[in-house]
Amino acid sequence: MFRSLRTVQQFNCNLLTFQRRNVSNKLLFSTSTMACSEFRIERDTFGELKVPADKYYGAQTVRSTMNFKIGGPTERMPIQVIKAFGTLKKAAAQVNKDYGLSPKIADAIVQASEEVSAGKLDEHFPLVVWQTGSGTQTNMNVNEVISNRAIEIMGGKLGSKDPVHPNDHVNKSQSSNDTFPTAMHIAAATEVHHVLLPGLQTLHDALAAKAEEFKDIIKIGRTHTQDAVPLSLGQEFGGYVQQMKYSIERIKAAMPRVYELAAGGTAVGTGLNTRIGFAEKVASTVASLTGLPFVTAPNKFEALAAHDALVELSGALNTVAVSMMKIANDIRFLGSGPRSGLGELILPENEPGSSIMPGKVNPTQCEAMTMVAAQVMGNHVAVTIGGSNGHFELNVFKPMIIKNVLNSARLLGDASVSFTNNCVVGIEANIERINKLMNESLMLVTALNPHIGYDKAATIAKTAHKKGSTLKAVAVELGYLTEEQFDQWVIPGDMLGPK
Amino acid sequence: MFRSLRTVQQFNCNLLTFQRRNVSNKLLFSTSTMACSEFRIERDTFGELKVPADKYYGAQTVRSTMNFKIGGPTERMPIQVIKAFGTLKKAAAQVNKDYGLSPKIADAIVQASEEVSAGKLDEHFPLVVWQTGSGTQTNMNVNEVISNRAIEIMGGKLGSKDPVHPNDHVNKSQSSNDTFPTAMHIAAATEVHHVLLPGLQTLHDALAAKAEEFKDIIKIGRTHTQDAVPLSLGQEFGGYVQQMKYSIERIKAAMPRVYELAAGGTAVGTGLNTRIGFAEKVASTVASLTGLPFVTAPNKFEALAAHDALVELSGALNTVAVSMMKIANDIRFLGSGPRSGLGELILPENEPGSSIMPGKVNPTQCEAMTMVAAQVMGNHVAVTIGGSNGHFELNVFKPMIIKNVLNSARLLGDASVSFTNNCVVGIEANIERINKLMNESLMLVTALNPHIGYDKAATIAKTAHKKGSTLKAVAVELGYLTEEQFDQWVIPGDMLGPK
Amino acid sequence: MFRSLRTVQQFNCNLLTFQRRNVSNKLLFSTSTMACSEFRIERDTFGELKVPADKYYGAQTVRSTMNFKIGGPTERMPIQVIKAFGTLKKAAAQVNKDYGLSPKIADAIVQASEEVSAGKLDEHFPLVVWQTGSGTQTNMNVNEVISNRAIEIMGGKLGSKDPVHPNDHVNKSQSSNDTFPTAMHIAAATEVHHVLLPGLQTLHDALAAKAEEFKDIIKIGRTHTQDAVPLSLGQEFGGYVQQMKYSIERIKAAMPRVYELAAGGTAVGTGLNTRIGFAEKVASTVASLTGLPFVTAPNKFEALAAHDALVELSGALNTVAVSMMKIANDIRFLGSGPRSGLGELILPENEPGSSIMPGKVNPTQCEAMTMVAAQVMGNHVAVTIGGSNGHFELNVFKPMIIKNVLNSARLLGDASVSFTNNCVVGIEANIERINKLMNESLMLVTALNPHIGYDKAATIAKTAHKKGSTLKAVAVELGYLTEEQFDQWVIPGDMLGPK
Amino acid sequence: MFRSLRTVQQFNCNLLTFQRRNVSNKLLFSTSTMACSEFRIERDTFGELKVPADKYYGAQTVRSTMNFKIGGPTERMPIQVIKAFGTLKKAAAQVNKDYGLSPKIADAIVQASEEVSAGKLDEHFPLVVWQTGSGTQTNMNVNEVISNRAIEIMGGKLGSKDPVHPNDHVNKSQSSNDTFPTAMHIAAATEVHHVLLPGLQTLHDALAAKAEEFKDIIKIGRTHTQDAVPLSLGQEFGGYVQQMKYSIERIKAAMPRVYELAAGGTAVGTGLNTRIGFAEKVASTVASLTGLPFVTAPNKFEALAAHDALVELSGALNTVAVSMMKIANDIRFLGSGPRSGLGELILPENEPGSSIMPGKVNPTQCEAMTMVAAQVMGNHVAVTIGGSNGHFELNVFKPMIIKNVLNSARLLGDASVSFTNNCVVGIEANIERINKLMNESLMLVTALNPHIGYDKAATIAKTAHKKGSTLKAVAVELGYLTEEQFDQWVIPGDMLGPK
Repeated sequence: MFRSLRTVQQFNCNLLTFQRRNVSNKLLFSTSTMACSEFRIERDTFGELKVPADKYYGAQTVRSTMNFKIGGPTERMPIQVIKAFGTLKKAAAQVNKDYGLSPKIADAIVQASEEVSAGKLDEHFPLVVWQTGSGTQTNMNVNEVISNRAIEIMGGKLGSKDPVHPNDHVNKSQSSNDTFPTAMHIAAATEVHHVLLPGLQTLHDALAAKAEEFKDIIKIGRTHTQDAVPLSLGQEFGGYVQQMKYSIERIKAAMPRVYELAAGGTAVGTGLNTRIGFAEKVASTVASLTGLPFVTAPNKFEALAAHDALVELSGALNTVAVSMMKIANDIRFLGSGPRSGLGELILPENEPGSSIMPGKVNPTQCEAMTMVAAQVMGNHVAVTIGGSNGHFELNVFKPMIIKNVLNSARLLGDASVSFTNNCVVGIEANIERINKLMNESLMLVTALNPHIGYDKAATIAKTAHKKGSTLKAVAVELGYLTEEQFDQWVIPGDMLGPK
Repeated sequence: MFRSLRTVQQFNCNLLTFQRRNVSNKLLFSTSTMACSEFRIERDTFGELKVPADKYYGAQTVRSTMNFKIGGPTERMPIQVIKAFGTLKKAAAQVNKDYGLSPKIADAIVQASEEVSAGKLDEHFPLVVWQTGSGTQTNMNVNEVISNRAIEIMGGKLGSKDPVHPNDHVNKSQSSNDTFPTAMHIAAATEVHHVLLPGLQTLHDALAAKAEEFKDIIKIGRTHTQDAVPLSLGQEFGGYVQQMKYSIERIKAAMPRVYELAAGGTAVGTGLNTRIGFAEKVASTVASLTGLPFVTAPNKFEALAAHDALVELSGALNTVAVSMMKIANDIRFLGSGPRSGLGELILPENEPGSSIMPGKVNPTQCEAMTMVAAQVMGNHVAVTIGGSNGHFELNVFKPMIIKNVLNSARLLGDASVSFTNNCVVGIEANIERINKLMNESLMLVTALNPHIGYDKAATIAKTAHKKGSTLKAVAVELGYLTEEQFDQWVIPGDMLGPK
Repeated sequence: MFRSLRTVQQFNCNLLTFQRRNVSNKLLFSTSTMACSEFRIERDTFGELKVPADKYYGAQTVRSTMNFKIGGPTERMPIQVIKAFGTLKKAAAQVNKDYGLSPKIADAIVQASEEVSAGKLDEHFPLVVWQTGSGTQTNMNVNEVISNRAIEIMGGKLGSKDPVHPNDHVNKSQSSNDTFPTAMHIAAATEVHHVLLPGLQTLHDALAAKAEEFKDIIKIGRTHTQDAVPLSLGQEFGGYVQQMKYSIERIKAAMPRVYELAAGGTAVGTGLNTRIGFAEKVASTVASLTGLPFVTAPNKFEALAAHDALVELSGALNTVAVSMMKIANDIRFLGSGPRSGLGELILPENEPGSSIMPGKVNPTQCEAMTMVAAQVMGNHVAVTIGGSNGHFELNVFKPMIIKNVLNSARLLGDASVSFTNNCVVGIEANIERINKLMNESLMLVTALNPHIGYDKAATIAKTAHKKGSTLKAVAVELGYLTEEQFDQWVIPGDMLGPK
Repeated sequence: MFRSLRTVQQFNCNLLTFQRRNVSNKLLFSTSTMACSEFRIERDTFGELKVPADKYYGAQTVRSTMNFKIGGPTERMPIQVIKAFGTLKKAAAQVNKDYGLSPKIADAIVQASEEVSAGKLDEHFPLVVWQTGSGTQTNMNVNEVISNRAIEIMGGKLGSKDPVHPNDHVNKSQSSNDTFPTAMHIAAATEVHHVLLPGLQTLHDALAAKAEEFKDIIKIGRTHTQDAVPLSLGQEFGGYVQQMKYSIERIKAAMPRVYELAAGGTAVGTGLNTRIGFAEKVASTVASLTGLPFVTAPNKFEALAAHDALVELSGALNTVAVSMMKIANDIRFLGSGPRSGLGELILPENEPGSSIMPGKVNPTQCEAMTMVAAQVMGNHVAVTIGGSNGHFELNVFKPMIIKNVLNSARLLGDASVSFTNNCVVGIEANIERINKLMNESLMLVTALNPHIGYDKAATIAKTAHKKGSTLKAVAVELGYLTEEQFDQWVIPGDMLGPK
């Protein structure tokens, strides 16, 4: 990944080199980093602060890093939110140009915003999720980075707020209270479209291919984890396919309200200090930039004070996780063994399974998937609690909510692809085992119900179970029917559907 | 409530009377109960059992009461599930008649089923939720009650299974595994349509009326629970209206998959022992009996093995609960006081508020609503966990899942009506207080941004705050503007929207 | 349960209409209810109300039934809370007598309170959980019932508040805000001691007996649901025993803070209107009445404003549920079959398993237990949310919190006993099957690691798996060892512990 | 953090292609990755792999990065787990030396392990949480890094497994199944002791100092968010202090079972391939290395198959989060304003509050804390679900469980410190405002109860509320008492405790 490095002469920088050598002094690897000791002085309404000279962010960002030492680097604001802000700030600058913002300034903001969206300035966003609940400091981080980068583009001095002011220009007609929820929705919708839905579709298609491949393999069914009447392995996989089909539908059903953008609501939803039409133009610009059908939220008060749309999306993600847990659990149990489990499926061997038991192979993709499912269910509770605790004109659990929604979407999308490529596509049916189990099954007796009644059928099954014998032998022995009748009536292949 | 009592001469019954008298021997009240010591002997495949002579249920029901002593009467299978079973058994009997079931038997089943649906036989369903995870015992309870009641209608002997057999006739072409989920969906959809949606609409309409009533009352906004720029009280309530509007939409969006019925899937989803067309006919009969757009599930394997549709509905209920929590919290805080709170709303006084503090009135309807919301969020987690733990061809958390979904739907529906009638319709704005707070607000300074810039405006606000002075006085004192300019620029009524 | 059946002529039926009007007398809504009973007129600070003549409760209770029509009879305040109130009111009356309350009044209150605790007056407590969040109305319900019953005992007139006043005498030195949490703690501790802990101990002991019974049965282990090295069935059950042992410890560890009683804190925790020593004496009286080590809470502010102690207890219940889910899942999987599952355990057959599949037996006790576990986990989230949302001097999710805690404790206790009696004690080991699976297992190869190394051992296992052959045959074939060495090194009984 | 920046000419870039084919050699899927570095070839039982030359990890680690592309760098195994593994591997090597492991090898392992614990090799642990549910791949990652680093120390060739073999030496007498849970417990206990408990103590002490500072400030109480009788601000903060005191106790109460280590249980809990005494010695060595009272788990089967101890700890963390939510909510509401809120507390101003509203200051530390609380509650559900889904001899949600427990502990600990330093220590009481509100309060009327009775007191309060008048004026006007009596009876300072 290439990082932006400003011209060296502005700073006293040192190239630090870290090398690892082996005992014979052979260079194993070498890593270098530019350490710039200089800083510039910036000020906000609270006073002066030292800002690292090689960073585009400014005083408010630095202040936040001092005030919120919670959780460390792994807890940073998801980069998808930063990128979504890039899109929003670009859109706002374009619309502001229509409303009279200096074209030069607007164009510089647009260029800087594009760099943010492209991920070129990631290192300039150090803030963690655990900050102001409105995400104000991340909005200001974005405003500062874009203004400084735009100043640089226009040949100005970093930190001077001239000619591009973070509040007056980059944040023009905006407030954290409407921009952050806008970025939340852009980020969520983008992640859903670029990671989650393709992942779910991939898994759906792979399962559908397996359902087709397995459609003629008749196997014993299991209800209550106990032996039951037969179905085809294709039918069994067909249930999973339906779950995935509905997973995709559920996610899509939650999206209309996620496509609604708060931008234009400013501080409390009234749109104070914006111009008529601003909200609509920003939404349509974001729509055209992203290719997603964003619209302006019909009620900005709801859009700032509540995050029901994301709670709803999280609910859909939770339902997907429930489906995944079921499918992955089934596959690992059906593939259990190799000798002492159900053994109907042969799962791909991807890695050594045990550091102590040689030759062991484990359903590791199922395990990753079920762990992801549990995480998504937990994330959903966090989102629910955050969503329910908004007060008056603003919900202040915004960063936490979007962190969890994005995490759930990403994990489910990625895990679907991993599960597909490393497990589903390689699943094979252990036909020998499947046949053996089905033929031994006592539940085939159900086919006799219409011929000899439930009670006699039950007697046959119980007797065979007790004796360890076959249904046919017992049925004939008890005199309920002949061997020929048994063969004629008990045909697993005839038990797969209504007549 | 009238209860069915069979003719007395069949039993040795005793009328037990319980009377309460005061010290002067005045009869305060008297209660009687029929205690019937007789029983009849019934048998299932496990042996003989004594069944109370005055009950329609049979051996399998009695056996379940012996095997599952968990939780007591409050934990009984929700009566809505029993009524839904009445509808299903009626529909199945009608369809079975088309396929050759004796019309006399079918008609007796239909009549008995209607009594079940009408709630006339409620006392014959003693089983608790905590039983077989497929709800098998409740299905058999229903089969036993309907068969015995039908036998009675046809002049037979209770417990004889003749001429109406619980399995062969009442349960014909059915399995617990498909009937219970069918009853789950019928019950859930019915509760949603008859309790939940009307309740939500009631609350929506009441809030919308208030939003209209309050549309010209300008008040201070609050973000981060701190003073912010103004909005109208109507706008604030408008946000709640939007949440309720979307609540209704969210519930409706979850229903298509709830309208899918598993009936016809029998034991594992294949439809074994049913006839082609049975599933479709049952679904359309249920649809016409209920007036709801039920269809047969396109994939019965999914419909038995997973309850994603109810997890999804529970997710929608969870989102509604999140909205409710927000609205009820806002209203109680806005109505806090009377002297030391925000005091902007005057809530109806419904009851004495304190057993120790005279004259105290509390936002009790808000409290009931928020408790309901918390319960629904908890119920949702139970449903999620149950939904995720299905194995192979059957999910065996069915009774627990439907109990929680029905509980959530009922509580939200009832609480919406209670909250509307006992709180929302009686809310009044404390206009004097609202005006006072708004006029004192420092955040009106935001209107000066376009005229004197963010930094000077901030200085005015901070100075006024420090001095306990007004914005206008400070602004003039600092020489940033004239009194006339202030009056011209700072007009709350002009701050309610874009320009 | 006695239910009232009364001849109609004894009573006057009246249509009670309750209307709400706004200040301009506009009718806001109107609700009517048919009251078919004699009634008396009572009044509270809000006006007159008709109270059923045969009920001890008074105006405030009736008012609550009108204001909170949420959820119906199944949602009533748990009867354990009512009984706990009986204990508390008795204790308070005794202590108040020490501080000067008329002995006659005190004694009548004591007698009436004992009837409440004994469950003799259950029908006089009609209120639902979904009421005031402080439980004020239930406290007043108790005060009204006890005062009226005490009045009756003393020969007075119901509803006259003379000679026993519900507030001035029954509620003396008390507030809902301290009595309700006191009743919560008494109820929770009682349920824990009388239902939960005995249930857990029962299950623990049954599992321990099985662990002992099975201690010499060597079986295949399973990790990742896949075949692994052997252990004894006794060891496997020993893990469950340890979980149950710790379950009991966890519950006990949470109790010290549940034993703390809020009584004496009155309205906000200061103890206003109580006497010095009152709090301590009430707690010690409750302790001696219940035989449980209750003490007065060291900080009454915390005891009213937070319910962390019950959140903590709910957390312990949640952990118990987690253990239960694991144990019940294991047992149903180990007992799966009879032919196509793992089949190592033979579970008791308690009831017919299927309404369509004759002879089917299901692990229904495991299913009830796992449903209970899921419910407890959901209840815990509701408790957590309620616990976190207290404000200032009072948490107003009290009824919801205690409902869920009591439900969890009861369900886990009852389910443990049901699971023990109907499943665990009857579990048998399928020794033939266990031996067969163990002897076929490829993971016995692990015993060769110290002799031939991990890599050769892995080759043996993989080859045997591929060929469907035995370890011994392959090992010899590959020339890694002799048949004698194999027999000497691979001894399952030697693989059950360190050397 | 050092990042590698390397000149391109030093390395060969290769397109690595990984293909999966079925038995008939049909290409199932193909994935490619650009590897731009020198590499070495390593092999595991699955074949050869290219390993980056500058990394100590080996084939199994690389294989895992290929198989589990889920979530990206932010989802890496928490570094605390890696460091705990360093401690464990060091302890195991020391104990193995006692049992005969070559001292040279053991010492090299010890040295390498110490580097792992010290965080010197962090970049060599690239694996994500979403892998095998037993953490096998992280255990192997650790084994590979330590063996290679030990090989390097001993002058050998990376990847040669000679003279230090990752399985035979580093993992000696161990299995992933016992080492990973051991590392989980070490990591959790360490985080609790080094981050969580100090953080909680810091917050406790700061609140206690405030309680002392505020002990003489009498203020209005609030119940149901409504005005109530007075208490001192010190008493109010004293409730928070008690919550924090109990938070610390709750965490400590959960630790005994976390101090139990699974090490020595190996694959299924039997301790196969270990020596008698190994488990105990490893535990005591870890105890002396960490200074924490670790012991060997009394039942290794439970320690591998369940993670109840961490579910329990998570439950304690959940209760702490509940306390935090209450405290932070109170403080933000008490500090709300500056003009239109409760305004009793003045919170420190840490940063500009709004990008649009000049001069606005927000309770941002409260917001971070409540977001953390919501996250912890969500994490707890994930842990609960993972904990409940273990099967047979192994729970395979290990990485997910420890990730969430560590996250909760860290966030609560860090947030406590941040909240203390940036909020609590700077809180000031707005005494003027507090006095004003208290003196205006109608609930002081409660002091009149013992003198004029509840009903007259209620009339005074209601009349004063209606008229907007004072209690004294109304009381005198109604003729219930004299001005002198009022002044004598209504003394807020006398209402703070029992008499």
